[in-house]
Amino acid sequence: MKELSNLLGFRESIKVVDATLRDGGLVNDFYFTDDFVKALYQANIDAGVDYMEMGYRASKKVFDESKFGKWKFCSDDHIREIVGENDTDLKLAIMADIGRHDKNDFDEKVNSPVDLVRVAAYIHQMPEAIDMVEDAAKKGYETSCNIMAISNSQEEDIKVALDMLGKTPVDVIYIVDSFGSLYPEQIARIADLYLNFAAKYNKKIGIHAHNNQQLAFANTIEACGDGVDWLDGTYLSMGRGAGNCAMELLLGFLKNPKYNVYPVFKFIEDHMMKLKDDGIVWGYDLQYLMTGLLNQHPRSAIAFTKENRRDYAEYYKELLI
Amino acid sequence: MKELSNLLGFRESIKVVDATLRDGGLVNDFYFTDDFVKALYQANIDAGVDYMEMGYRASKKVFDESKFGKWKFCSDDHIREIVGENDTDLKLAIMADIGRHDKNDFDEKVNSPVDLVRVAAYIHQMPEAIDMVEDAAKKGYETSCNIMAISNSQEEDIKVALDMLGKTPVDVIYIVDSFGSLYPEQIARIADLYLNFAAKYNKKIGIHAHNNQQLAFANTIEACGDGVDWLDGTYLSMGRGAGNCAMELLLGFLKNPKYNVYPVFKFIEDHMMKLKDDGIVWGYDLQYLMTGLLNQHPRSAIAFTKENRRDYAEYYKELLI
Repeated sequence: MKELSNLLGFRESIKVVDATLRDGGLVNDFYFTDDFVKALYQANIDAGVDYMEMGYRASKKVFDESKFGKWKFCSDDHIREIVGENDTDLKLAIMADIGRHDKNDFDEKVNSPVDLVRVAAYIHQMPEAIDMVEDAAKKGYETSCNIMAISNSQEEDIKVALDMLGKTPVDVIYIVDSFGSLYPEQIARIADLYLNFAAKYNKKIGIHAHNNQQLAFANTIEACGDGVDWLDGTYLSMGRGAGNCAMELLLGFLKNPKYNVYPVFKFIEDHMMKLKDDGIVWGYDLQYLMTGLLNQHPRSAIAFTKENRRDYAEYYKELLI
Repeated sequence: MKELSNLLGFRESIKVVDATLRDGGLVNDFYFTDDFVKALYQANIDAGVDYMEMGYRASKKVFDESKFGKWKFCSDDHIREIVGENDTDLKLAIMADIGRHDKNDFDEKVNSPVDLVRVAAYIHQMPEAIDMVEDAAKKGYETSCNIMAISNSQEEDIKVALDMLGKTPVDVIYIVDSFGSLYPEQIARIADLYLNFAAKYNKKIGIHAHNNQQLAFANTIEACGDGVDWLDGTYLSMGRGAGNCAMELLLGFLKNPKYNVYPVFKFIEDHMMKLKDDGIVWGYDLQYLMTGLLNQHPRSAIAFTKENRRDYAEYYKELLI
């Protein structure tokens, strides 16, 4: 049984990261109002969340600024408009998506309200990810690295990536179940692997889960029980496709008295139900279960959703081809 | 790590039970059409499901027959109208809800298409449950017993109940997370307890989960990995409140080639989406998360749902009183 078997206790080293704006932005093209973002910032403070991811810092050379909300680009000025100098215990993060970022967009930490730069990369992009990690660390940021889509990677390749990252200044390495295809038993084995490298290189391990098989929360608390300290959640699971681990489930589970689930419920009621009412669509549904089950990228399920298709059985057969 | 760590293998002793008509009937007062029930019966056969629960056999002295669909009463004649003599590998079950049943409504097995009588009882009703189990076993049925709402029971009381049941002819004893409040780590410990009694008395153990915290599937496969053999699911999670473990998730997970998830998808597309479109409401939502989190009966959350309330934060405060 797990370290957390005593469910009444808690581990001080756990950090909760709110990824609502970043992963959730993928379903509304990052068009969050300032009111929404300000209220989310306040809710995170009230809920005791440790880090708030403000969005991607995507390169304007890669993406047309007129086609997305500002949280896809997330300049220091954008962030300051919401948080000022952020004189709170809530730390701020932004994501650099390898191949779609520009490291020149990142100022020295001393000039930025951002605390943590999260680097996301596929396993074959590790050298570029490491270049970004090293640049951000040199500028004074905390850094983390998501190795994406590991359910399609060879374990030997993952070990090489963990060794490469271990030798960098990266603070946190993330287990990422991009396709929502992993079961808790697999998470346990993967956590064991990552934690061995973490011990060797003095790193922390995090988990970012997707809800294709209604396992995002279960996988997150499995990893937590295994010793993974950094836990991503999003309000009402908002995120690409089937969405993520729900913040309200996660904070309900964690027993550290610094966490408080009530502000999460209040924010959802006041701000997120409106997104649903406005027709923004995300969350568990059969088409996402199918891609998760088959360990495939959710892009075809996202298309199925956008086209308002209801022919689930036919879609499943398409996936099997 | 678990017996099922080799996720490519399977255990012959696993039995999948479809509880859609019975637990799902709680959200539409058992008004399923004959076409629906016939198609579900065929889908279960095609999917390789082991048992299909046809409904409750509730006492007409307790419930007014004019106020419910026939699957709340589920006579042998009702069942025969759908399945004839059921000359298939799919076995049929009905549920006797202790205190709301009448054992005189159960004919000898030799005269009935029913194979399995499932007895459901709160822990303080064990003597009456055992009376029912013994009567059904004497008449020639397979029998199981659900000890409900154990998240509110003392472990010592559960042990007494398991000892009492162990000495009866009951074939299967069920772990039931009535309030959807248990985490996988707790399921692991409860499964360990139940399996010890099962070994002593030569019984099988089953699990019936609820999805209040999006853990019905996770808890079911946790228990499965721990050695629990009888697994309840419902199509599209249809069941009271937050619903149950989704059959489509469960059959996607189980690797025994006799199981086939495609007929489940097809049935959902052809028959269950219509229920949703017709306004039948069930499934995970914040109000059910809240009662699960607080280990409370979902009845107030069901009322919240029926009243179309959206004031989640206020409701949460009501639950804390």
